[in-house]
Amino acid sequence: MSHNQQLQKIMAYNLLKGKKGIIFGALDANSIAWKTAERVHEEGGTFVLTNAPIAMRMGQINELAGKTISEIIPADATNEEDLKNLVEKSMEILGGKLDFVLHSIGMSVNVRKGRHYTDENYSFTEKGWDVSALSFHKVMQSLYKAEAMNQWGSIVALTYMAAQRTFPDYNDMADNKAYLESVARSFGYFFGKEHKVRVNTISQSPTPTTAGQGVKGFDGFINYAEKMSPLGNATADDCANYTVSLFSDLTKKVTMQNLFHDGGFSNTGVSQEVIDEFSE
Amino acid sequence: MSHNQQLQKIMAYNLLKGKKGIIFGALDANSIAWKTAERVHEEGGTFVLTNAPIAMRMGQINELAGKTISEIIPADATNEEDLKNLVEKSMEILGGKLDFVLHSIGMSVNVRKGRHYTDENYSFTEKGWDVSALSFHKVMQSLYKAEAMNQWGSIVALTYMAAQRTFPDYNDMADNKAYLESVARSFGYFFGKEHKVRVNTISQSPTPTTAGQGVKGFDGFINYAEKMSPLGNATADDCANYTVSLFSDLTKKVTMQNLFHDGGFSNTGVSQEVIDEFSE
Amino acid sequence: MSHNQQLQKIMAYNLLKGKKGIIFGALDANSIAWKTAERVHEEGGTFVLTNAPIAMRMGQINELAGKTISEIIPADATNEEDLKNLVEKSMEILGGKLDFVLHSIGMSVNVRKGRHYTDENYSFTEKGWDVSALSFHKVMQSLYKAEAMNQWGSIVALTYMAAQRTFPDYNDMADNKAYLESVARSFGYFFGKEHKVRVNTISQSPTPTTAGQGVKGFDGFINYAEKMSPLGNATADDCANYTVSLFSDLTKKVTMQNLFHDGGFSNTGVSQEVIDEFSE
Amino acid sequence: MSHNQQLQKIMAYNLLKGKKGIIFGALDANSIAWKTAERVHEEGGTFVLTNAPIAMRMGQINELAGKTISEIIPADATNEEDLKNLVEKSMEILGGKLDFVLHSIGMSVNVRKGRHYTDENYSFTEKGWDVSALSFHKVMQSLYKAEAMNQWGSIVALTYMAAQRTFPDYNDMADNKAYLESVARSFGYFFGKEHKVRVNTISQSPTPTTAGQGVKGFDGFINYAEKMSPLGNATADDCANYTVSLFSDLTKKVTMQNLFHDGGFSNTGVSQEVIDEFSE
Repeated sequence: MSHNQQLQKIMAYNLLKGKKGIIFGALDANSIAWKTAERVHEEGGTFVLTNAPIAMRMGQINELAGKTISEIIPADATNEEDLKNLVEKSMEILGGKLDFVLHSIGMSVNVRKGRHYTDENYSFTEKGWDVSALSFHKVMQSLYKAEAMNQWGSIVALTYMAAQRTFPDYNDMADNKAYLESVARSFGYFFGKEHKVRVNTISQSPTPTTAGQGVKGFDGFINYAEKMSPLGNATADDCANYTVSLFSDLTKKVTMQNLFHDGGFSNTGVSQEVIDEFSE
Repeated sequence: MSHNQQLQKIMAYNLLKGKKGIIFGALDANSIAWKTAERVHEEGGTFVLTNAPIAMRMGQINELAGKTISEIIPADATNEEDLKNLVEKSMEILGGKLDFVLHSIGMSVNVRKGRHYTDENYSFTEKGWDVSALSFHKVMQSLYKAEAMNQWGSIVALTYMAAQRTFPDYNDMADNKAYLESVARSFGYFFGKEHKVRVNTISQSPTPTTAGQGVKGFDGFINYAEKMSPLGNATADDCANYTVSLFSDLTKKVTMQNLFHDGGFSNTGVSQEVIDEFSE
Repeated sequence: MSHNQQLQKIMAYNLLKGKKGIIFGALDANSIAWKTAERVHEEGGTFVLTNAPIAMRMGQINELAGKTISEIIPADATNEEDLKNLVEKSMEILGGKLDFVLHSIGMSVNVRKGRHYTDENYSFTEKGWDVSALSFHKVMQSLYKAEAMNQWGSIVALTYMAAQRTFPDYNDMADNKAYLESVARSFGYFFGKEHKVRVNTISQSPTPTTAGQGVKGFDGFINYAEKMSPLGNATADDCANYTVSLFSDLTKKVTMQNLFHDGGFSNTGVSQEVIDEFSE
Repeated sequence: MSHNQQLQKIMAYNLLKGKKGIIFGALDANSIAWKTAERVHEEGGTFVLTNAPIAMRMGQINELAGKTISEIIPADATNEEDLKNLVEKSMEILGGKLDFVLHSIGMSVNVRKGRHYTDENYSFTEKGWDVSALSFHKVMQSLYKAEAMNQWGSIVALTYMAAQRTFPDYNDMADNKAYLESVARSFGYFFGKEHKVRVNTISQSPTPTTAGQGVKGFDGFINYAEKMSPLGNATADDCANYTVSLFSDLTKKVTMQNLFHDGGFSNTGVSQEVIDEFSE
């Protein structure tokens, strides 16, 4: 048993024993969804992995499926038919209704194509909104219509603080994340009332995933965030742990919340290191 | 001079003397934009009125234009060409750059067609998002590209607290308003840095406009809001006054804010009248 | 083994194995701190129980100490000497530095004496502020000076949403809770930077503890809150579970946050049941 | 008429004609309260100036009184007798009930004596809380008991964003400001319900007042805030203008709000200039 396996062993509590779910968005070993899948597996949860067909071609999701003894069902999260199929198949494979779902999907065409926020191409904007924000509604509507969630199930989407405050390079993803967080509240109301299911978003530190690293100015920003966060930036591993706590039975009455997971960044007005940079 | 005219006379301070702008969304005398146009005129501002061609056919905007000595330029706020034309023509008509813009546009096809939030038709959702939320970006991008705003100009959009908390009948308008408010922050950053222009949203009490009155459960809700607000609901007239203050030179350093204008509703956890209803 | 014991058995994950701490404020079996002590014990944590000498005379804390194999050290949380002694003795008894602390202390003399918020007796106000709010600073300053916390330790205080929105009967406790939450952020910054310790507050549903039940209008309010919360009010047991998650290693990067644990109340503008009450 | 007087002339709108009030905290020409007194005078408002006897000895308030044709009534804002006298005398002098009150009072003994936040002297803390936070309750309770406010009157207190996010050198003033903002909401509820009076706080940019300049690290911080604010820091003059808008009849339904007046700082996650500082 390697040292790393031993550490993982120590961290396993059986928190998700018997729980079933779907994990969206594991692209490669840097992905938060990837780390989460590993942690959920360690905690005894079983799940289906899914990603857009195109993202799967770029990624190494098969390796993750092997490691976590999971099946993969490709699905475009903007396509209602794909989602219907995903939800039905997942319940078949896992043998019943679901207890947890992770939505970790986001992409801005404006960012990819280098369009500034004040010079958006609106067909790019629409595409990014559909993939990054509306997809969360589509996922939940598919689950809701299929009555696929068990009581006290937990749905989590990943978001970023740009939904509250402007970060100049985050572009239209800020607006998409604001929409996504609103969807969590709106759908959380109905999912709570009707099915006792909770819906939350985790507002995560900037994380050097393969997707994130492409963003202009990312290094400067992650450096700044590290200096502004009293506990340092939360890593993808930290996020996987936090997501496990939100999938567990310990957090049953937490719903419709946007939960900052950022080492304290969100409530730090300024840190000493940053002031020092601006003092002579 | 009628009593009403006298009252209006008393309320005029010349706060917007010499200021020029565009007002979107005056449908009829119940509209907040209509009241705002009247108040801006009283305060010495000059402006162009605009609305979607279809909304204009239903409305009485010509009457307002006569009263306020304004011209009307029809524009679909989702159409970049229309907006480009609107901005150019407005500067021509008004004789220079603009100092204020009011965005008061919103519509949910899902609401109109009676689709529940958990049963959205996504082409309806896309249409509502484009009209209610993305249109604000389109308006600002048109202004930005045309360099149409004077320094210390003020852009205001109307929104509703459903962007922060769920109101079951507000449907996908909640998500649209969250997007709209994010656009205000995001564009506010660039408009501020580059042109010293401020961008804010007013989060208004539920208001019995012609549009609002169609919403299911509106009466019960407005009654509840009245009882929950220590000062009572803010009316359309109140909102016109508040908007004038935000267009004036008194609020030059307020930007990227969502400003609750609601008689205290937003920060009232519960009122005595409401508790009493739930005590035996 | 009784059915209840079996259930408890099922819920234990060893999440706090080896962790040591102090729990303030267990008065009787209705107390959130009491339930938390039981759950922390089940999860393998060891701790010292403490309460004000006067509160201990009224309570049944000895029973809890027996059940959880804990020692009791009386301490007035407003008294620096008492706190110094408590921290030192706790480390001796538990054999090392601490990993978790729960602050569950609050009391308004104005409420007890029936003084309305607009007719405060300021010596009552000062006493309530010292007990309910400043005590949290005093506890943390005592821990900080004694270097009593292990890295990645977790400090939690209980609070209520009256810190953000007004509830007419909550009186000066609203202001005390606002101060308490600020202390969590302010001290969280320094505890994070210097010692990698996290500090958070849980904003809990109204809970029928022995203390809470004395408040005028409490029944009507708890009934309203139940109807406003999509998942219903969070109970003391729910809160104990949530606190365990915040003491565990799953939430290491969550700090300086005020975490709503309320079945969705905080982000529900109004629920259908409540609107219905106000519609004819 | 000097150029400056002409400019001031241009800015006067008669917004406060006939309105009466009390202004606390004008120390010298750098004070926000001083600038506000000047602007309120220009807008036609009449008022009594007040300050603690000790602060008056240090200040030049007589000059301001002469300029604004005001009387001065010394009052310790922590002393109920002084406040009762102030309110009664003010109504006598001004000839009736009041329409506006500005609270601009704050002082931390811990800061003055160089005590770090993690090493507070609690008698200093209590004194600072009384002066900076509880005084606002005392002022409003005095006004409330004397039924001294006219309907639609407006009460404003100045605050700082440290109430929401930590600034390392702001020390216990952060907690005091959080308490003050809570008092605004709590008292705003009752003042609104009973007397239709509104209560708000303005969360102002760091401002180089005589008081502010003493704070350690103030220069570095103000420099950082300037770079983080898309419109630059709001000045004391800007704040005076904004306060005038909140005293005017244009903002009658704004209450229980904390209003950021900061050039956009509060909703800027990071600015380009600041990122650039952290990029190589």
